[in-house]
Amino acid sequence: MSRRARRRRGGQGSVVPLPPPAPPHAPGELRQDPLGGGWVAITAGRAARPEAFLADEGPVRGPLGCPFCQGNEHLTPPEVWADREPGSAPDRPGWRVRVVPNKFPAFAGQALAAPERNGGLYRAAPTAGLHEVVVHNPDHTATLADLPQPAVAGVVAAWRQRLAAHADGPFGAVMVIVNQGRTAGASLEHPHSQVFATAGRPERVAAELDRLAGRGCAACAMVAAERDGPRVVERAGGLLTVCPWASSVPFEGLLLPARHQARLQDGDAALAAALHGLLGRLRGAAGARAPYNLVLHTAPPGVDDFHWHLHLLPRLTTFGGFELGTGIVINVVDPDHAAAALRAAPG
Amino acid sequence: MSRRARRRRGGQGSVVPLPPPAPPHAPGELRQDPLGGGWVAITAGRAARPEAFLADEGPVRGPLGCPFCQGNEHLTPPEVWADREPGSAPDRPGWRVRVVPNKFPAFAGQALAAPERNGGLYRAAPTAGLHEVVVHNPDHTATLADLPQPAVAGVVAAWRQRLAAHADGPFGAVMVIVNQGRTAGASLEHPHSQVFATAGRPERVAAELDRLAGRGCAACAMVAAERDGPRVVERAGGLLTVCPWASSVPFEGLLLPARHQARLQDGDAALAAALHGLLGRLRGAAGARAPYNLVLHTAPPGVDDFHWHLHLLPRLTTFGGFELGTGIVINVVDPDHAAAALRAAPG
Repeated sequence: MSRRARRRRGGQGSVVPLPPPAPPHAPGELRQDPLGGGWVAITAGRAARPEAFLADEGPVRGPLGCPFCQGNEHLTPPEVWADREPGSAPDRPGWRVRVVPNKFPAFAGQALAAPERNGGLYRAAPTAGLHEVVVHNPDHTATLADLPQPAVAGVVAAWRQRLAAHADGPFGAVMVIVNQGRTAGASLEHPHSQVFATAGRPERVAAELDRLAGRGCAACAMVAAERDGPRVVERAGGLLTVCPWASSVPFEGLLLPARHQARLQDGDAALAAALHGLLGRLRGAAGARAPYNLVLHTAPPGVDDFHWHLHLLPRLTTFGGFELGTGIVINVVDPDHAAAALRAAPG
Repeated sequence: MSRRARRRRGGQGSVVPLPPPAPPHAPGELRQDPLGGGWVAITAGRAARPEAFLADEGPVRGPLGCPFCQGNEHLTPPEVWADREPGSAPDRPGWRVRVVPNKFPAFAGQALAAPERNGGLYRAAPTAGLHEVVVHNPDHTATLADLPQPAVAGVVAAWRQRLAAHADGPFGAVMVIVNQGRTAGASLEHPHSQVFATAGRPERVAAELDRLAGRGCAACAMVAAERDGPRVVERAGGLLTVCPWASSVPFEGLLLPARHQARLQDGDAALAAALHGLLGRLRGAAGARAPYNLVLHTAPPGVDDFHWHLHLLPRLTTFGGFELGTGIVINVVDPDHAAAALRAAPG
């Protein structure tokens, strides 16, 4: 952890002791909580990240020393894909979108059998999988809403490329996420996405695979139920954008194809335009610096019956003890109101 | 929402539009997410709270106009219980601990059958139950770690009294929570607990009731497995304090009786001393203002076979898209290290 980061933590009155030195690629471990049954990934190597313990928004740090800025390509592992100016060389300037392995991967390596411990009380598994970073743009400060729509299309093209690259991997789940703003979990300021693949199938992914398959697909039913209703934000290019009836946070958005389609890369749906429009509306409704998460759920390898979709989860409120103790999330904004506010904002 | 709160939000660049006027006691609705299966409580009346949209720690606001300070008893609903100086009158100064109904209850009223909608796609239920506030102490700024141990014992006595008062109510779950610090979800600065009861049984509570019953009780097994091990923080007064093997956040703590006991109010376990010690150690290890949640899980009405326990969940890091998209929490600090740091800090 950098001296600078430590100073800033001190300024908040929080003096978290440094963990013992661990190699940055120290393998983690998935562990099941014997009380509640949930799974946790203990990845102690990730505490070495400069911003691991910062949670508030704070001032902008700027591009100095940023590993995602042009000219600093040597600060990341070698790129695995990039959209580049003709003639530019890998790991040099000249890229428009750049994909690199995460330097502090939460998931990496092969799945190995892990024995149970303490007579079955403790169940563990390796944090096998992969973890990549998609740097959205050379611009250090432009969020997806700030970028022109063709640049957003370049980011979505990178997602599709990576999802296609991993389509036959030994993974139970593959997803793309964006953490925009520190409150939403971003550890580096320069806007980027993360591509995750896990050897196992997380419970939340398994639940969606179960609910979004076949003739009973809940996403198809939702498209039919919401179409033209009060929670629709936009319909265009074969995609529907709604504030879900069971929104878990204020101004939650859901973006999904009107027809049943397993993978983002299966079709030609106009995701970039819809996403750019939705994030622009969120900016109008909740402010330019509103933190948010994006989660793209798409069919993992070996699954052909699913309904891909993108969750937008603004982080304007925080979870408290009730949410952590029950698993039920309290949302203080009615999604009908959120949809009206997003519709009224410029797209 | 107060003009002051709106100004402060503006300072963060986040301009959340006000929801339409709703009565403060507007009934909420539990809704099941048709995609992931999780439950959400839509409680639009709670957005009227002054701090509903503030998430960062910010400067101390102070006691001016605080509804939990002495002399301001008229700003809360009438008290339902208090530990008072002899001769002092209800809803007047002279109390040491004071319990009032929550002015903006997330759960209230009777359970009524709620029909499914849209042919079974949308499942809902009323947010039936109750929601009380335990004001810990007249001191506006003293957290549980700052108070002398007898004052913490007074707070725990209030918890026991309220749990006993609701022991025969029509509830599927009863719990006590503390949100300490805005990052941990506190909407009011003056330290307090919240007592929740819900007509239904939240999934997380149901999982624990299943896993912590009978001869296979996972808490009993954990006590046996952890006793004298590297994750023990303290053992005293019939209670064990550990950093759980599957800790979901850095410096997570679990406080549980060594023997199988269904309800906090069943025995004479020295919870106040153990809690005071643990929070003091957290302060030493992570700073005086480290935000945290406490969650007390105890047997609900009609259940006699359970193992009560208290979760301490420091909020030094934040959840990102991976956590929200998978349900798996990434924790960057090994609990063995956390326990060593807490043991080394003064209790």
